[in-house]
Amino acid sequence: MSETIGRRCWAIAEGYIPPSSTGTTRELTSHETLCILNATETAARVEITVYFADRAPAGPYIFDVDARRTRHLRFNDFDDPEPIPTGTDFASIVRANVPVVVQHTRLDTRQPALALLSTMAFPLDG
Amino acid sequence: MSETIGRRCWAIAEGYIPPSSTGTTRELTSHETLCILNATETAARVEITVYFADRAPAGPYIFDVDARRTRHLRFNDFDDPEPIPTGTDFASIVRANVPVVVQHTRLDTRQPALALLSTMAFPLDG
Amino acid sequence: MSETIGRRCWAIAEGYIPPSSTGTTRELTSHETLCILNATETAARVEITVYFADRAPAGPYIFDVDARRTRHLRFNDFDDPEPIPTGTDFASIVRANVPVVVQHTRLDTRQPALALLSTMAFPLDG
Amino acid sequence: MSETIGRRCWAIAEGYIPPSSTGTTRELTSHETLCILNATETAARVEITVYFADRAPAGPYIFDVDARRTRHLRFNDFDDPEPIPTGTDFASIVRANVPVVVQHTRLDTRQPALALLSTMAFPLDG
Repeated sequence: MSETIGRRCWAIAEGYIPPSSTGTTRELTSHETLCILNATETAARVEITVYFADRAPAGPYIFDVDARRTRHLRFNDFDDPEPIPTGTDFASIVRANVPVVVQHTRLDTRQPALALLSTMAFPLDG
Repeated sequence: MSETIGRRCWAIAEGYIPPSSTGTTRELTSHETLCILNATETAARVEITVYFADRAPAGPYIFDVDARRTRHLRFNDFDDPEPIPTGTDFASIVRANVPVVVQHTRLDTRQPALALLSTMAFPLDG
Repeated sequence: MSETIGRRCWAIAEGYIPPSSTGTTRELTSHETLCILNATETAARVEITVYFADRAPAGPYIFDVDARRTRHLRFNDFDDPEPIPTGTDFASIVRANVPVVVQHTRLDTRQPALALLSTMAFPLDG
Repeated sequence: MSETIGRRCWAIAEGYIPPSSTGTTRELTSHETLCILNATETAARVEITVYFADRAPAGPYIFDVDARRTRHLRFNDFDDPEPIPTGTDFASIVRANVPVVVQHTRLDTRQPALALLSTMAFPLDG
């Protein structure tokens, strides 16, 4: 039994940025998040490809996650090479050059009480 | 360590279409969704079998997911060979002819503030 | 690559029956559920052991799930050999004599808008 | 096919203690929880390391989980070697000296109706 500290490729089949919010702060604005944990001793370069129902994929979106750090990235904030439209179904694949762990969380405040979902992403290498 | 882009068979033991909604739009109508990501270069043919507590399974429900696309299918919309009843416990198995990734999400607006759940489906091949 | 239709042993580390409800129907009463899918051609005998923080485990709770059927069992309804207390942290292990798939869901209506969580159980054999 | 009763190392990439609550009881105070099931016959020593976006990791936080018991630990309560700040993104790795099962749950009552999320942690050994 050997220990790794994650995987290099992850998939998330769900993706949707709620197009409205009742929250007025950044924290309570509806958002869709990728949580990435890099528990290795090496900085990670992460590439995210976003898939849609009826158009070619977008990306790659590129981020760095320092060694022994976590970054919780909001799809809402993605803008290079292009923003992710709100109110639109998508999915994503995350590739990293070192093993990481990826979890997917949504906070939805379209109605006047927030809702949450979260699930571990699905590891594609192993 | 080799990379795949999913699995060919997935199971979801939870299934329930909330029988009412406080939301008045399609987006805020209570729904139960299968999110399918086909990140391969080949169109996928997906077959879904739905299991119940006290009757024979329904299906297969058949859908296509184009190469490098995602589809978020609502069980609410299934009608061929038969609709899925609301307010009824079910479960499902998804089989595809190419590797895909499957995630299960519910939006529930029976009470006046939406609730969400989501979890990756369980891969049965591998 | 071979296909199974589940596993024989599953664990759920989370467990909590909310001790109150704003919902007045069975559907909207706070509940903690085990969803079990038996997609095999053989009836399943399922044994559930429930673990607590500060006392010996309870069970086994025994249920049958017919071939090609699903059962969504509420911990709230367990009574043999003893009921599960509400408002108390617990965890559970599910063992079956044929491969099944197990998912864990909570509906919480303690406050005046329901909340949901769900996650696939963790397979212990494999 | 062999049965284990868990894994010795788990990762959770999501972590966030909501900084406020509308609930007034301990149960309805916003919290972030690690549920740990020790179904073995041996007491478990658990070490938790917490990762942040922009500072060195905290910990290890050390807890015991008796044989055949579960503990649902709130990050809110962690104080040795230091408390976990609220309103701050984090991630965690859990290591145990015997196989355990780890699940991550959040209850969020910042707005006037609770929200929940839960997902099984990701096993790093196997």
